[in-house]
Amino acid sequence: MNTPKIAVDCMGGDYAPEEIVKGCLLAHRELDVILYLVGDEKKIKSILDKENSYDRKRLILINAEDVVSMSEPPSNVLKKKRSSLYIAGILLRENEADGLVSAGNTGAVLTVGKFLVGALEHIERPAIGVALPNPKGRTVLIDVGANVDCKPKHLLQFAIIGHTYAKEILGVQNPKIGILSIGEEEGKGNELVRESYALLKKSKLNFLGNAEGRDIYAGTFDVIVCDGFVGNVILKASESLGMAVLQMIKEEVQKSLIARIGALLVKPALNNFKKKADFAEYGGIPLLGAKKPVIITHGRANAKAIKNAIKVANEFYVHHFNEKLAEYMKSLSPKEVKV
Amino acid sequence: MNTPKIAVDCMGGDYAPEEIVKGCLLAHRELDVILYLVGDEKKIKSILDKENSYDRKRLILINAEDVVSMSEPPSNVLKKKRSSLYIAGILLRENEADGLVSAGNTGAVLTVGKFLVGALEHIERPAIGVALPNPKGRTVLIDVGANVDCKPKHLLQFAIIGHTYAKEILGVQNPKIGILSIGEEEGKGNELVRESYALLKKSKLNFLGNAEGRDIYAGTFDVIVCDGFVGNVILKASESLGMAVLQMIKEEVQKSLIARIGALLVKPALNNFKKKADFAEYGGIPLLGAKKPVIITHGRANAKAIKNAIKVANEFYVHHFNEKLAEYMKSLSPKEVKV
Repeated sequence: MNTPKIAVDCMGGDYAPEEIVKGCLLAHRELDVILYLVGDEKKIKSILDKENSYDRKRLILINAEDVVSMSEPPSNVLKKKRSSLYIAGILLRENEADGLVSAGNTGAVLTVGKFLVGALEHIERPAIGVALPNPKGRTVLIDVGANVDCKPKHLLQFAIIGHTYAKEILGVQNPKIGILSIGEEEGKGNELVRESYALLKKSKLNFLGNAEGRDIYAGTFDVIVCDGFVGNVILKASESLGMAVLQMIKEEVQKSLIARIGALLVKPALNNFKKKADFAEYGGIPLLGAKKPVIITHGRANAKAIKNAIKVANEFYVHHFNEKLAEYMKSLSPKEVKV
Repeated sequence: MNTPKIAVDCMGGDYAPEEIVKGCLLAHRELDVILYLVGDEKKIKSILDKENSYDRKRLILINAEDVVSMSEPPSNVLKKKRSSLYIAGILLRENEADGLVSAGNTGAVLTVGKFLVGALEHIERPAIGVALPNPKGRTVLIDVGANVDCKPKHLLQFAIIGHTYAKEILGVQNPKIGILSIGEEEGKGNELVRESYALLKKSKLNFLGNAEGRDIYAGTFDVIVCDGFVGNVILKASESLGMAVLQMIKEEVQKSLIARIGALLVKPALNNFKKKADFAEYGGIPLLGAKKPVIITHGRANAKAIKNAIKVANEFYVHHFNEKLAEYMKSLSPKEVKV
């Protein structure tokens, strides 16, 4: 296997370019990858030059004069052809790179993935899958924001993408697939769910039926599919609930000296838990079903998060994700859905 | 003001009738209410008879020979005219009672509220509002499960119901209203959100625009409206995330003796927090916009939860919720929406 080449948008994110370049250096030391560092060459070089040594054949600078800011409309990126994000996208489209990592404007990164890199053959809509932690392992929730107003055939595609993720990346043998609804029984849910249910039932996936909200963090399914609108609000609500719970507990703890002492003793255990749930730990969330995987990291991504996002992009390459996905699209789709 | 009369379905819920009747006794002692205890008269009486004394004019038994089980299809309740839930619903429809509390089959309770009790004039679809805790106070999320596949005019109605809840029950002066979407800017979201946004903007509500998933637990809005499908999966995901987080922290704590000691010291503070988030504490969630409020409690409701649900029903009566809602429907709707 060739060494994977990952394009990194060095100008996107709240701490760009410093933390992004530092993340590349971490990945450079830990992983067998070639990195394209796309952005303001001068700035990137001055950060790299603080390092004692690095392999110039594996950390390759590509100059980009323009930047897509965090606040501008996502579609701008398609006009800003000299921006770091656009040029990184072009590297994928031209088969120069095997994956992309960006902490920049999420909408713009999605736009590059969907329209510049483009979808894999037979996939109509790439989707974002996120492997959420639960006491038993992880559950892939897909789509969490790339597509709103979906059709049943899109949810079927998300299910096959999710199956590929759970099986090939997370190592689940026969992934249990569910569709997110508001009741267990067939027939419960909205129109989209009821129609998608019928389609999923005809597929060769290990489809168990409706999942409910409570199943997302219970580990009862390996993959739960939903419309990108629903997935996005759940993902963001979950993040804020986690923070709100910790803050409210903190406030209660502050009221008592004994509780404050107790909190100190619990802290290491709490940190272990946080590690499991921490965004920086698992780096980024992938847009899957694009011709090459595009990894979107948080705007607040630090060097460690960037390194982990590069690791994620690398894993998709090493595990032949796209090749497997193409196979499963053929072998698992229902007969009446032409692939 | 007359003493409010609340009908309690004594046969619904995992711990019926014991815990339900005990909950009625608790409410009987604490609140100025008249309770109709609907269910198997013999069984209810034998539980009541263990009590030293109670006011027979305020705890009134109404016999019902049939029961709607937790697992049967919700629509069955409309055929089971001798069931405790149906008879409780009839008491509301006939203006004999001012509110209903049931821990039974949620779908069946909703069916009774929507079709037997029926909607208030000008309200097309009653909705479930839940006041979720956050570090600053509470945010009403509405609808969390009574309606899927909504139209913009329904979301407008949910917003006015939510406004009434926040203002009249939670005491918020000028409730900040948002619509749940996947980005802050106008134009972000799915078709339903974009069309509802336009309608809400024309209303006289204090409409701040799109809310994101993260706003639900951040306290940035007093009311967030959404389709009942979306609200339901968020509510259930939140419950399960809370439990998963506590379990994962527990597992980490178990690994270390010091952390275990720390956990003991933190426990009282944690219990205070749990009280804030506990279902039993705030008793039940109301179906609002029905002719009389219908309070749905958890199937696992114990006596305390039932007592608190009766308290909730009482509050809606005492605060003239329905009268206020009818007023706000007229004064806050956009001109082009006829009320």
